[in-house]
Amino acid sequence: MLDAFFAPRSIAVVGASRDEAKVGYAVFANLLAGGFAGTVFPINPSAEPILGRPAYPSLTALPEVVDLAVVVVPAQATIPVIEECGARGVPAAVVISAGFRETGPAGADLERRMLEAARAGGVRILGPNCLGFIATASGVNASFAPLMPAPGTISFLSQSGALGTAVLDWAAGEGIGLAHFVSLGNKADISEVDLIRAWGDEPATGVVVAYLEGIADGEGFVLAAQELGRRAPLIALMAGSSEAGARAVSSHTGTLAGSKAAYTAAFRKAGVIEAATVQELFDFAEGFSRQPLPAGPGVAILTNAGGPAILATDACERVGVRLARLGADTVEALRGVLPAAAALYNPVDVLGDADASRYETAARILVRDPAVNSLLVVLTPQAMTQAEDTARAVAAVASDAGVTTLAVFMGDRSVAAAVRALKDAGIAAYSFPEQAVATLGAMERHAAQRMRAPDPPMGVPADYHIVRAAIDHAREAGRTFITEESAGRIARAYGLPVPGSGLARDRTEAQVLAGRIGYPVVLKIASPDILHKTDIGGIALDIVDAAALEVAYERMMSSVRHRMPDAHVWGVTVQRQLPPGHEVIVGVHRDPSFGPVLMFGLGGVYVEVLKDVAFRLCPVTPTEARSMIEEIRGYGVLRGVRGAAPADIDSIVDAICRVSALAIDFPEVTELDINPLIVGRRGDGAFAADIRIGIGG
Amino acid sequence: MLDAFFAPRSIAVVGASRDEAKVGYAVFANLLAGGFAGTVFPINPSAEPILGRPAYPSLTALPEVVDLAVVVVPAQATIPVIEECGARGVPAAVVISAGFRETGPAGADLERRMLEAARAGGVRILGPNCLGFIATASGVNASFAPLMPAPGTISFLSQSGALGTAVLDWAAGEGIGLAHFVSLGNKADISEVDLIRAWGDEPATGVVVAYLEGIADGEGFVLAAQELGRRAPLIALMAGSSEAGARAVSSHTGTLAGSKAAYTAAFRKAGVIEAATVQELFDFAEGFSRQPLPAGPGVAILTNAGGPAILATDACERVGVRLARLGADTVEALRGVLPAAAALYNPVDVLGDADASRYETAARILVRDPAVNSLLVVLTPQAMTQAEDTARAVAAVASDAGVTTLAVFMGDRSVAAAVRALKDAGIAAYSFPEQAVATLGAMERHAAQRMRAPDPPMGVPADYHIVRAAIDHAREAGRTFITEESAGRIARAYGLPVPGSGLARDRTEAQVLAGRIGYPVVLKIASPDILHKTDIGGIALDIVDAAALEVAYERMMSSVRHRMPDAHVWGVTVQRQLPPGHEVIVGVHRDPSFGPVLMFGLGGVYVEVLKDVAFRLCPVTPTEARSMIEEIRGYGVLRGVRGAAPADIDSIVDAICRVSALAIDFPEVTELDINPLIVGRRGDGAFAADIRIGIGG
Repeated sequence: MLDAFFAPRSIAVVGASRDEAKVGYAVFANLLAGGFAGTVFPINPSAEPILGRPAYPSLTALPEVVDLAVVVVPAQATIPVIEECGARGVPAAVVISAGFRETGPAGADLERRMLEAARAGGVRILGPNCLGFIATASGVNASFAPLMPAPGTISFLSQSGALGTAVLDWAAGEGIGLAHFVSLGNKADISEVDLIRAWGDEPATGVVVAYLEGIADGEGFVLAAQELGRRAPLIALMAGSSEAGARAVSSHTGTLAGSKAAYTAAFRKAGVIEAATVQELFDFAEGFSRQPLPAGPGVAILTNAGGPAILATDACERVGVRLARLGADTVEALRGVLPAAAALYNPVDVLGDADASRYETAARILVRDPAVNSLLVVLTPQAMTQAEDTARAVAAVASDAGVTTLAVFMGDRSVAAAVRALKDAGIAAYSFPEQAVATLGAMERHAAQRMRAPDPPMGVPADYHIVRAAIDHAREAGRTFITEESAGRIARAYGLPVPGSGLARDRTEAQVLAGRIGYPVVLKIASPDILHKTDIGGIALDIVDAAALEVAYERMMSSVRHRMPDAHVWGVTVQRQLPPGHEVIVGVHRDPSFGPVLMFGLGGVYVEVLKDVAFRLCPVTPTEARSMIEEIRGYGVLRGVRGAAPADIDSIVDAICRVSALAIDFPEVTELDINPLIVGRRGDGAFAADIRIGIGG
Repeated sequence: MLDAFFAPRSIAVVGASRDEAKVGYAVFANLLAGGFAGTVFPINPSAEPILGRPAYPSLTALPEVVDLAVVVVPAQATIPVIEECGARGVPAAVVISAGFRETGPAGADLERRMLEAARAGGVRILGPNCLGFIATASGVNASFAPLMPAPGTISFLSQSGALGTAVLDWAAGEGIGLAHFVSLGNKADISEVDLIRAWGDEPATGVVVAYLEGIADGEGFVLAAQELGRRAPLIALMAGSSEAGARAVSSHTGTLAGSKAAYTAAFRKAGVIEAATVQELFDFAEGFSRQPLPAGPGVAILTNAGGPAILATDACERVGVRLARLGADTVEALRGVLPAAAALYNPVDVLGDADASRYETAARILVRDPAVNSLLVVLTPQAMTQAEDTARAVAAVASDAGVTTLAVFMGDRSVAAAVRALKDAGIAAYSFPEQAVATLGAMERHAAQRMRAPDPPMGVPADYHIVRAAIDHAREAGRTFITEESAGRIARAYGLPVPGSGLARDRTEAQVLAGRIGYPVVLKIASPDILHKTDIGGIALDIVDAAALEVAYERMMSSVRHRMPDAHVWGVTVQRQLPPGHEVIVGVHRDPSFGPVLMFGLGGVYVEVLKDVAFRLCPVTPTEARSMIEEIRGYGVLRGVRGAAPADIDSIVDAICRVSALAIDFPEVTELDINPLIVGRRGDGAFAADIRIGIGG
């Protein structure tokens, strides 16, 4: 899709320079040195040869139309270059030059005009204000980064050029190969969404790793990531997720960082593997790029020392990685070959004097156990340890068995050669047990997610006209919210359980209404003159049938006539009486990047004090709704504690899906809160006791 | 205190060998190679010279009495050696030999008998089943680890020998110096407590780093760590904190791991800096050993790239590190020297083309700002970057200013020399922003803790006789719990607010009793024949004075006589009526290592479902009690939400301190629960509605 960038036939460097201190020299030199098979033309008005290549004064002067222009002229000069690209039919341009949106309003205006020129001429732009990009398969180093990484399966995109240079440096040092490296810069045109989409179609990319500071097209991101995720994992670090960090982002590249709740929900929806730190981004990339996904849960830990195995076990519990329960025949087989003092149960400790062959023998037994879907090999350099031989032996076992294998070889110089051997053999290697276990956890979760059945949203038939009319009515009245009565009608139009209510002018009307609403009902005196209904007998609860209603109605009227003879009485409000139940909140707000985000939580102090809530991106499927209910810490309250009856979870799932459908169908709904949704016992349903709807757009 | 180990005048290796494959050779060779100035004698029955040193058949045959025996004979042979040590007056022995407690009951018995021999002969023992130890100042490498670390200020102790070897390897690779390295092994005699105590008195140790799998003498640990903490930080990683991990520990060294709640409370009490992972253990050691503690909060971030600064800012928010608010003159000074596009507010971005002098100039301005108590220097290798010169320049500024300085130089080969320069100049250097920020957070917390005023427990005068009598009474009755009535008396003896109650045989007695207890009171019919008091009018609430009591009493008696004429009535129970309030739990359980651990939480689902509780080691001071109340997530409920009145926090603090005093004074109390303590509004006090006390020992 972005072939003109990643696999061009020929390239021009506009602003190529003979001055070695200039970026225009570095970029040109990198392109020549990177192994690109096509022609690279320097464009420079001076027209003297650069690095032995004849220079041309302009793109127009070139003997052929190039696929890619690398632009390193000053910001002001970029617009004519892009126009020339359009005129000559050059489909792709990397604008490395800085001096655009990152510098303020004038630069933003320049960027906008450059983009207009690009759109008009049919030119796609990467940048501006970026480091450029590298595609190892085609040998294109269209960047001013001095290091050409080895070919590999990781495609890396970074919204920070500086972090990009550090990553290239690490990749070189650690022997990590890359398929692509892209510095996004200001993302005037090409964004992370375009790249993820392009790499989703390209088999050379096995893993996508992303450093992001904001996502403008949230919906596009989720779709592209889901599509990619069917084939390759996307590992992302989202910077600026803290409040202070978000301020730093704004001053940095001018992108508004999505709120943490929204992008975390989006990552979950899209199946993105979220890294919490740069270290984790690298650790995950190491595991996902070198090893196959585990076929299921159940790790066997193989170690020559107790301490590190304990640390690994602790980490497994923290991360939610389950230790495999070894079969009896496995334990017997181990007993047959290991010294008497060895630990035969998981973790399997082959003892401090284990040589490479003892590791190998134990590993071969472990990978045959059907309960073992991954192997964590831990080694500390002790007196008899053969680190390098162990590395090779374990790698051979792993490769034969196809079992996901991660290694933790602890130490520095004593294990350096062994770590190199592990990586060369395709085993993911780490310094600390916690890193390996966190990575394995991410791999297990991703594997489970790939195997999950399709999870369609619930079909919610609704009376759209009612909603449309209510919204139009509120807008015409200049309001940014829907009245309580209209909100109830909208909710009902989407099948949400709103307790029935209505005004009855006399007893017979009240009985008819109550019959329609369903008993038990509550009667309330309806009068503009009566504020404190309770004081004068203006409220009657627990009315279970028509006969009881008659009694209550007459008593109420007589009491009111007696105590407030002058009050103007319209009649009575008849309301369905809500059963006692748990109060929960179902709400939606609209994130500028990701659209409607649904929140669920227990009501009252749980939300206000404990902030015990879960978020999902809409549309929320029934499976997702259930998972968000189970995710909150207070879930046990709904499940029932100390013999209390469980709440009607199904009715919450239903309400969540209906609210989600409403938010998707009507983008004008900017926020919606059902607070509380009163949830009865299992089978008793739930009722939306109070609904607020805000509108905009 | 352990001078015979760490600064011996002469050493004997019992079991020294000429066979290079044997530990007895490695240990002897290491001792000769380590730079030890005293004599090292090989002891071997064969009596042939080893590495050119004449061997002796026994300790007794030596020409002098050595200070230290390094024992590498088979397990069975160790007892006579230790006996010989005692007989000859050798005060210290490192038993490297394995084959003791770690192998099962027979080994445990051997270990016990060896310890008896040591105690009888006045010999201190390190080990058995350990790697040995290293003391760099005296050049003693009494271990079979092949690497002698450089001298330094870190003293490291490890319950895992294997982790120890990995640490020595890392220390060598990273250029980290050590004062001492000790492998604890089975801890038959010398434990972490002895070492912490010894190093607390020894100025060569600047930082103590510990890897632990269990702490047997919890009280000793807390005292020793507190004493050390006045002078030097103790950084510890506690392995086996998960349930699965604890099982792995048990099979590993046979130590029962303290429960997580108990040791976390102990670390807090003792001022121990807890590392969550091995990586964090190293990161913290790097920061604490190289840099002074910050004088206060407020970090300035100095960077040449936006992305990493955002990551650092995110990490600051997560960890609770506050960014310094730069003074107006600082900002102006920066504006005067930095390019127009630089970010002048914290984080200060000197831009991608910053050379060393620009970093230096900005750093000099920042460290002068009184709001800046620490400096985080972030560098990514870009085109114009002078990493090594920047390292030296920044180190010079830091050393002049005495401001805590941590550096994050991102990348691999491009920054390797710079990182070396940073470390050589005493700057703590990290690869990732998150590592540096986590370390700075730990340093800030430790600094704040050192500056904290003494925090004595509350004096709790109590009537010990009542408690003693109740415990004795229960024991004599063969019970492991105190009866409800006795528990109330015990609580009252410690000044805990227990609602008054008593039995009155007639109306007059009831009035007298109520007058003593204080109105309002509740009356309950007292009869062995009446189970369901409410049904027959046997309970009266809200009795506010003597007149009301009379009415209620007569009505109750008449109702009971009428409905259950045959019931035998003793009279009425008069109880103080508790005001409505929040239900909280104050409990104590006794940890096998750390003694009484106090728990506080909100009652009901907060404890049962949300597990929202805080733990502290007893004695709990008023300051600690307040901090544990503020620590729980539901604290807002007590502070008052949505205009609700705040609860009487002072009365909870008081109750916690009294329960703590009771647990300290009476070790027989194995558990105690006040559940609920009903807490009224501020000024209204609290009442222990239900008290359960378990006893043992």
